[in-house]
Amino acid sequence: MATEEIKEMPKSWAMVGGDGPQSYTQNSSYQKGVVDASKEMVTEGIKDKLDFKSLGFDSSNDTFRIADFGCSVGPNTFFAVENIIKAVEHKHHAQFNNSPPLAFQVFFNDVPTNDFNTLFKTLHSSRKYFAAGLPGTFYGRLLPKSTLHFAYSSYCLQWLSKVPNEVVDSKSPAWNKGSIQCDGLKKEVTKAYSAQFQSDMNTFLNARAQEIVGGGLMVIIMAGLPDGIFMSQAGVGMYYDLLGSCLVDMAKLGVISEEKVDSFNLPLYYSSSKEIEEIIKVNGNFSIEIMDSLSHQIWKTSKKSNIEVSVSGGRAVFQGLVEEHFGSEVVEKTFEHFAKKLVDNFSIFDGAAHEHIDHFILLKRHFN
Amino acid sequence: MATEEIKEMPKSWAMVGGDGPQSYTQNSSYQKGVVDASKEMVTEGIKDKLDFKSLGFDSSNDTFRIADFGCSVGPNTFFAVENIIKAVEHKHHAQFNNSPPLAFQVFFNDVPTNDFNTLFKTLHSSRKYFAAGLPGTFYGRLLPKSTLHFAYSSYCLQWLSKVPNEVVDSKSPAWNKGSIQCDGLKKEVTKAYSAQFQSDMNTFLNARAQEIVGGGLMVIIMAGLPDGIFMSQAGVGMYYDLLGSCLVDMAKLGVISEEKVDSFNLPLYYSSSKEIEEIIKVNGNFSIEIMDSLSHQIWKTSKKSNIEVSVSGGRAVFQGLVEEHFGSEVVEKTFEHFAKKLVDNFSIFDGAAHEHIDHFILLKRHFN
Repeated sequence: MATEEIKEMPKSWAMVGGDGPQSYTQNSSYQKGVVDASKEMVTEGIKDKLDFKSLGFDSSNDTFRIADFGCSVGPNTFFAVENIIKAVEHKHHAQFNNSPPLAFQVFFNDVPTNDFNTLFKTLHSSRKYFAAGLPGTFYGRLLPKSTLHFAYSSYCLQWLSKVPNEVVDSKSPAWNKGSIQCDGLKKEVTKAYSAQFQSDMNTFLNARAQEIVGGGLMVIIMAGLPDGIFMSQAGVGMYYDLLGSCLVDMAKLGVISEEKVDSFNLPLYYSSSKEIEEIIKVNGNFSIEIMDSLSHQIWKTSKKSNIEVSVSGGRAVFQGLVEEHFGSEVVEKTFEHFAKKLVDNFSIFDGAAHEHIDHFILLKRHFN
Repeated sequence: MATEEIKEMPKSWAMVGGDGPQSYTQNSSYQKGVVDASKEMVTEGIKDKLDFKSLGFDSSNDTFRIADFGCSVGPNTFFAVENIIKAVEHKHHAQFNNSPPLAFQVFFNDVPTNDFNTLFKTLHSSRKYFAAGLPGTFYGRLLPKSTLHFAYSSYCLQWLSKVPNEVVDSKSPAWNKGSIQCDGLKKEVTKAYSAQFQSDMNTFLNARAQEIVGGGLMVIIMAGLPDGIFMSQAGVGMYYDLLGSCLVDMAKLGVISEEKVDSFNLPLYYSSSKEIEEIIKVNGNFSIEIMDSLSHQIWKTSKKSNIEVSVSGGRAVFQGLVEEHFGSEVVEKTFEHFAKKLVDNFSIFDGAAHEHIDHFILLKRHFN
């Protein structure tokens, strides 16, 4: 059966767990900004695009199933889910005026090394839904066939299932020596990253297509780039380059080896809307109902708070990756140095020619 | 909706997490013995009592949903679930010869403070089912209406939702001073514990009745006593009395206060089969298809291994309760003392007039 496709991602892909000062829970205000910015668009999307009758619901009581793919540890996932439920209830009431209220079941998905203990302990006791945890990579099947009415994935799908082999192969023309990301400066590297992204997105869409009922919706929010813009031209790319330069510094200090730095690449790909559109169309399981980009104000706050968010938020996300590749003993030193370098160089971001964008995509599952 | 009924149990009800030397994972061989002893009975029960046609299944592909209520952290729950799946597949094949294989979705339930992280990390990657975690007390609704085909609960329902108020109330005739359990020697105490058990069982049955489809099965395995036997006459009761005497010793040494010992009671009730039968009949949602007791050999191994199991297994289960009531600083000392006292006094168990029994109950959900 389809669960045989399940493949597990390495531990490092999970955000920092717990609720301590370095946890994702305490350091995901950027991601919270994304949730806030998308709130209205999700509400409107449900209002306009969700049709209970075509989903096969009637006026009798029924269960509406929602899944958040890549939920991490909260609280962002709770805000997102509660917003979805509110909008779905509203639409249900509009379509079936006097029917009994819907029941909701919500599946919280992330990799098995995600801190589900923290997620479960922080579930609101007053919640109005049945909660379940769904451990496993979303690049594979996670739920039985045609059981989901609404899928949601926020700020996850820019994470690839793996770093493309070629970019860490010194014999390949796509060897990415001197950079830790797909900076857009080397055609072969970009091609390798882009191919991995296409393959991963396609795997994701095929898995969800099995799980989502005909007429069901899926909201995807993911980091991307404006058409024609490279990572190295965008603030976020400069941020990753700065992290890369810290690793080079660490190698110069003899803390880590140069070879280790050369073989370290971020499994991240910031796609253009054109690229995503093409992948979804070729995949063929979903129609694109809305494709837009989010405007949010997170980088428009005070410089001091920007720096804080950059330092602590970056660590909550990237610590696991650095730890896995270089060993836990260098994590503290590396991120201390990164923090210092960020503070000293923060003005470079003001000079960034471009910003990355956040794609907002609303898909509808075709009826088979 | 029904999820508003959800009430959370205190932290102490969860077994010791992780996979270290004191974890439940490493110290649940008694509970594993229970799983082994019940294996054949579960298989036979499914063969004889499960009817796919009355469940509304036809020969087309469909999903069979299983939940383990009170699964703890494994590996016992995995053995149990795999055994159930094998038997269900066998029966399905017998009823629908050439139909496509069933898909399985398994919900692993325990309190939100259970160590789900360990549970999820130890899920077999080759498993043939969709896995989900279900955080929350089983004394409340956990799943949408009529979505479950098979419920399972092993060695959990002797745990009450709370210690009855009266037994820790010095003004009540049911005050249980001098004992940490329902030892059967004081009528009022037994009555209070029995009433709590009735109420909890009824809550459990009502919640499951909502979740299980008509014709669906539920296996309940729980610790109990032969009809007419008191805890104080059984080996397990003597074991709890020994734990109680350790707490008294700790109070004499000034490590904990006497008042604290007086207010400590185990939220455990070992019922007779007569008592359970009555509760199920009065509840009225299920028919009793099989009611039996398990024979298992766990106490018949070498004395040395018995002592080891008693010491480490007891700690994995009771550490949380002791910690919550007396504070974490006394845990080490108390269980060291308990271990020593167990070794010194192990021969008393040979002289126990009776052993407790393990009830095996197979229920079928009525059609409404």
